Amino acid sequence: MSTNTLSQIKAALDPKAWSEDPDELAPHVRDWRGRYQGASPLLLKPSTTDEVSRILSLCNAGGVTVIPQSGNTGLVGGSTPQGEVVLSLKRMNQIRTIDTDNDSLTCEAGAILESVQDAAKARGKLFPLSLGAQGSAMIGGLISTNAGGVHVLRYGMMRELVLGLEAVLPDGRVLSDLSGLRKDNTGYDLKQLFIGAEGTLGVVTAATLKLFARPASTAVAIAAVESPAQAVELLGHMKETTGSVAAFELMPKIGLDLAVHHLPGARHPLDSDPAWTVLIELVSPETDRAQSLMESALETAFEKGLVSDAALAQTEAQMAEFWALREGIPEAEKAHGKAAKHDVSVPVSRMPAFMEEATAKAEAMLPEALIIAFGHVGDGNVHFNVARKTPGSGDDFVASCAPVTEAIYDLVDKHGGSISAEHGVGVLKREELARRKPVEVAVMRAIKQTLDPNAIMNPRIMLGID
Amino acid sequence: MSTNTLSQIKAALDPKAWSEDPDELAPHVRDWRGRYQGASPLLLKPSTTDEVSRILSLCNAGGVTVIPQSGNTGLVGGSTPQGEVVLSLKRMNQIRTIDTDNDSLTCEAGAILESVQDAAKARGKLFPLSLGAQGSAMIGGLISTNAGGVHVLRYGMMRELVLGLEAVLPDGRVLSDLSGLRKDNTGYDLKQLFIGAEGTLGVVTAATLKLFARPASTAVAIAAVESPAQAVELLGHMKETTGSVAAFELMPKIGLDLAVHHLPGARHPLDSDPAWTVLIELVSPETDRAQSLMESALETAFEKGLVSDAALAQTEAQMAEFWALREGIPEAEKAHGKAAKHDVSVPVSRMPAFMEEATAKAEAMLPEALIIAFGHVGDGNVHFNVARKTPGSGDDFVASCAPVTEAIYDLVDKHGGSISAEHGVGVLKREELARRKPVEVAVMRAIKQTLDPNAIMNPRIMLGID
Repeated sequence: MSTNTLSQIKAALDPKAWSEDPDELAPHVRDWRGRYQGASPLLLKPSTTDEVSRILSLCNAGGVTVIPQSGNTGLVGGSTPQGEVVLSLKRMNQIRTIDTDNDSLTCEAGAILESVQDAAKARGKLFPLSLGAQGSAMIGGLISTNAGGVHVLRYGMMRELVLGLEAVLPDGRVLSDLSGLRKDNTGYDLKQLFIGAEGTLGVVTAATLKLFARPASTAVAIAAVESPAQAVELLGHMKETTGSVAAFELMPKIGLDLAVHHLPGARHPLDSDPAWTVLIELVSPETDRAQSLMESALETAFEKGLVSDAALAQTEAQMAEFWALREGIPEAEKAHGKAAKHDVSVPVSRMPAFMEEATAKAEAMLPEALIIAFGHVGDGNVHFNVARKTPGSGDDFVASCAPVTEAIYDLVDKHGGSISAEHGVGVLKREELARRKPVEVAVMRAIKQTLDPNAIMNPRIMLGID
Repeated sequence: MSTNTLSQIKAALDPKAWSEDPDELAPHVRDWRGRYQGASPLLLKPSTTDEVSRILSLCNAGGVTVIPQSGNTGLVGGSTPQGEVVLSLKRMNQIRTIDTDNDSLTCEAGAILESVQDAAKARGKLFPLSLGAQGSAMIGGLISTNAGGVHVLRYGMMRELVLGLEAVLPDGRVLSDLSGLRKDNTGYDLKQLFIGAEGTLGVVTAATLKLFARPASTAVAIAAVESPAQAVELLGHMKETTGSVAAFELMPKIGLDLAVHHLPGARHPLDSDPAWTVLIELVSPETDRAQSLMESALETAFEKGLVSDAALAQTEAQMAEFWALREGIPEAEKAHGKAAKHDVSVPVSRMPAFMEEATAKAEAMLPEALIIAFGHVGDGNVHFNVARKTPGSGDDFVASCAPVTEAIYDLVDKHGGSISAEHGVGVLKREELARRKPVEVAVMRAIKQTLDPNAIMNPRIMLGID
């Protein structure tokens, strides 16, 4: 770390664009879950793309390493500095334009997801990305981690919602493509490189995002199924008969039990207390249509024996209540104790076998294991978490799960799955990634080396091994 | 070109996997439109990924350049050899698996689009990519050119339909990801590099594609609009009220006139003979639903003054007739005479201004110009073609249009558009690309150099300047 370069950077910027104040730095050098604590000599807060470009040029010339940061809500340690300068996008938070004829919105990387959702809504449109951290997660980070969430089934992950990007390369050159084209076959689609790159190839400074028509009606139901296999069958039925499944989330009995136990006001949606439930959301462009679609699709599902019990939300408040159960599972789980978490995916068709084998394996290896497996079964993504039956488990329990994690990842490999479906690699999974995808990682490293020859961008993250 | 390497390659392969027979080579060394004629010393016809890998390893070691070819239906000269060996994927045409629970299909690169559509249909599913050349275009080429077509509006371009790829790198290493995951955040999404790379980074040998539920009903209408601006307004209305627009194609009066004149049995769908029409296709997962959706949406469009006349296809045969008009425009145009063609895109909101300015400009520069502008207005892609008023124009007329082409591309740039929306770069537009996107091309060349240091893969195409 060249202090000379740091002085140059400070001199090149408006005084508002940097800080060395430990109090201001504090929230930027740890992650929000408190799992990673780091340090940084300098917080940079550029307010323009040009400032980002000047910063990276100087860092590149001086060999100063940089960790870009937006909402700092990641789960894999990808934005906690260990000596790097922190480049925060928080001052670049403008929504620049909304083009309703083109169904697109252009904003800066520091715009908060919820403010983008609200801006779209104010113009009668929908920006569909939706996840727990939406009140603080920022667009730049959501792009750099290719965020998922609960509506991937219908609208895709962040990758599919980006029409164009503005990104600054490590040497300060700016790639800019913010006109919102839906079709452009002029060479490699460079924006794809930055989506999901976790800040290792440059800094995303702005993006043009896809908007959609707002559904005129929405219906939410919770239905009882016998098993994950039946959930997959029900998913096929709902897709086939309604064509408008916006979310399809699997919840185990233990997940609902914990949610009801720990969340104020929560109650079981079904008296039958089934082993598994799914939360289904349907949308329709027609008023009052989603509800009747849901009713008739669930009716035929009953007739086919795919569902044994179901509750259809009758009011907006009840819809929110159903969603609160699903979204409350992680918090309830946390209240129960620490757990080893696995954000994995497999092909939808392999999900039932994976769930069965992984559960059997974990329980055999660790008799005190309590499996809490829930999530976006509609797109093959399950949060397969291993908790302890007795409440109050701590870090020592999580540490004792390491061999179980390896066994679970081996089963993921066996079923052609991914050891990080939506949370990314960060520092948490980089060794696993290098071990499990050696050819891919070699190609990724070659690309990284090409675009960032001095390795200044997030060098420890994803591809870097300390 | 090392003859020694060619001998090594022949010796390493099954005799069925190569040919030097000029008759067999003939269709592989020219393009189907007869615009490009080339030559090649050797046609390679591997039947396995391993053979492709061995071929590329040897070519890479011996500095032999390779042009990969699948259906050879491209429009920009990207698959015509000029001395390179031709690597045809035509023997790798198997559909390997269909997974209906995962809504995915895995096939080899030489599988013909129509056979993929049919295989999906036989299992009750839809593969939505649909374009004129579907009877001969193959999946590998469709991926390597990121093909578009008439259903992009609803289902996206080829890029959005690919769940995973198997690709052979120039040095023979194989990247394989055919398990059909919908979520995988483990590092850079390498498959994106090969999609739309026009064979410059390696050879796509297989792919896992997304399938969809088949719509239970489809409705097709042709509606009269005053102008492209009104077409864009009508598009917004249809998207908002139906949520299920599968295609939205703009056709000018001259396009329909030519189609009716030149296509056997074709007739005008509307007596009012309007200046502009749009072909609208709606789909629904419910039986008989699309038709009523179309009726009520067109009714409110009439009330709003967005449509002055419309014909709703009443039978499957009539739907096909309407589509035949739209799809017959290129052929009818060809029968009229040669034209300068521009496959361009702009943001949907800029389409009306672009159309107006480009038409005025072309007519001012070339008084004999007949503008035939039609296409996928729903995604901002227009085929803006400059024909001659008097029929029977030839190559000399097209050559005389060069300054008009430059002026049109300048207007495309002005409106933030793309000079190749869906056809790609090939040899046709590589100079334009290098001139108009210098920073991007520099980055693309750096990536090309990293993955293909000996420049054996399609060296003249897209990024190469002879």
